[in-house]
Amino acid sequence: MGASSKISQSPGGKAEHETDIGGIQMASTSEILETMLTQPPASPHPIAYNYLVPNIRGLDNLVKIFQENNAQNPTSEPTPPPSPGTGQSSASEGDIISAVANSTEISLFAAATEAFSQKNTNCSIAESLERCKPIMELAKKNNIRVRGYVSVALGCPYEGPDTDPHKVAEITATLLEMGCDEVSVADTTGMGTAPRTRKLLQTLKEAGILVEDLALHFHDTYGMALVNTVVGLEHGVRVFDSSVGGLGGCPYSPGATGNVATEDLVHLFHSLGCETGIDMVKMAEIGNWITAELGRPNDSRAGKATLSRLKNP
Amino acid sequence: MGASSKISQSPGGKAEHETDIGGIQMASTSEILETMLTQPPASPHPIAYNYLVPNIRGLDNLVKIFQENNAQNPTSEPTPPPSPGTGQSSASEGDIISAVANSTEISLFAAATEAFSQKNTNCSIAESLERCKPIMELAKKNNIRVRGYVSVALGCPYEGPDTDPHKVAEITATLLEMGCDEVSVADTTGMGTAPRTRKLLQTLKEAGILVEDLALHFHDTYGMALVNTVVGLEHGVRVFDSSVGGLGGCPYSPGATGNVATEDLVHLFHSLGCETGIDMVKMAEIGNWITAELGRPNDSRAGKATLSRLKNP
Repeated sequence: MGASSKISQSPGGKAEHETDIGGIQMASTSEILETMLTQPPASPHPIAYNYLVPNIRGLDNLVKIFQENNAQNPTSEPTPPPSPGTGQSSASEGDIISAVANSTEISLFAAATEAFSQKNTNCSIAESLERCKPIMELAKKNNIRVRGYVSVALGCPYEGPDTDPHKVAEITATLLEMGCDEVSVADTTGMGTAPRTRKLLQTLKEAGILVEDLALHFHDTYGMALVNTVVGLEHGVRVFDSSVGGLGGCPYSPGATGNVATEDLVHLFHSLGCETGIDMVKMAEIGNWITAELGRPNDSRAGKATLSRLKNP
Repeated sequence: MGASSKISQSPGGKAEHETDIGGIQMASTSEILETMLTQPPASPHPIAYNYLVPNIRGLDNLVKIFQENNAQNPTSEPTPPPSPGTGQSSASEGDIISAVANSTEISLFAAATEAFSQKNTNCSIAESLERCKPIMELAKKNNIRVRGYVSVALGCPYEGPDTDPHKVAEITATLLEMGCDEVSVADTTGMGTAPRTRKLLQTLKEAGILVEDLALHFHDTYGMALVNTVVGLEHGVRVFDSSVGGLGGCPYSPGATGNVATEDLVHLFHSLGCETGIDMVKMAEIGNWITAELGRPNDSRAGKATLSRLKNP
């Protein structure tokens, strides 16, 4: 069961300067990458850090930082973390290995509707795909894994809920043919429903897209994220995006909430008997900590309930 | 698709006095019933008002109020509301008919675990079922519909998540044989998972319980309520309890949140193509209004998203 660790920046953010988002000073992508290369966080297993790259200049900057730090991207495929207690890790419990094998990924975005593409990236869908090509080439040359996103795949704030699944399939196929290692199909607005999620996954399959090349990315804006995740699981999808404590949002999708909370997704997977390698209690503690640090509400039901139960055993 | 309109009181509440719950002055059951009989709220279709009756004295009080007001309970089966816009109602749009046909129901509770039964009602499961018998007889004599509840059916705060489904089936069957018109099987703690919900519904079926006699009652404490609702729908259940804005909680279940929000449930049903007769926008407005009145957070994702979308069309 994969989970994308993402440290991303809004598409409009400047690469060389700090960005002020909602009163929080956010480090630039360059600063984050430099820190990750020079002072990698200690971790018992490799972590893939994912950077949103809005244009070729963004990737040029990343590659420059790699070269300045004499760094090599160690792997283009993140190793799944070992399950806790399965003894798969050679480290004894509590042992922390320096994250020498951490890797860098980049993300490319395309939208599934023309209206969202114009509002979000100021160009047509076709133009945005054209812009992806040189970024893809430079990434491949530098052994950097590329993740594609197709946003508003299950509903658009400007065109409504009925995004054409064939358009999503066409864009997904184009991104994969261009060289994306994986494409995350995103319900940016949270308008997705179980029947439309099913229809979309069937359409993607009929278009010849392998489920192994897909990820799903749900927002819980209307409370449907977990129901739609179950539909994804039933169709064989095994990679789902989420954010701790449900943090996030989308500046181009009015009223949008963050991604579905990682804690809720993990609780769902465990409830269905899926292994994730994630310790639910530790995950819940992280969610509580980071939302408090950011002064945001903790939007994870499972996270809050898990901690509440610990306090009232 | 049924939805229980419930005005209930905590089991410990005194019938003749106001109860102070979380700083809010809550009218007693007697006062509410008297108001409903003398000044019935205007409604375009009949509403069933449900009162929690913890003991025979509680029902004695209700029957006395009926007699004092020369009231007759008009029907023991609530009429489902007409779907908006289907023309099933003889009233023109916006027309409000006085609710002459409103009816009164009562609720009886039993717990599925001995520990919860002791903590909640201070007696064993068998004793609590014995206590139900005279209440049931008096209700039937007065043409009052009776709804049974089996609490902690998918997890107990004292005995853990693995409530025995056979025990739930046994209690459900006893309540139905005793004369309950419907039994609501309740995931009081929100610990329920899709596989255990499925197992429970299969066990109830194997015990000879008809799905038509069942309701499901989910709390979204761990975020699983909608996933479990889909399992219920797949097994033929068509009555689901909920509360506007996710209001509520359980004083005997530490950390428990309210029932799943009506708005989230309605959005799910509509997303699956089920008709509910409920106007989603009006429902969302009610949720916003009542949670603001009570100074509680609006816990409905679909409700908040629906209103947010109206503001940012």
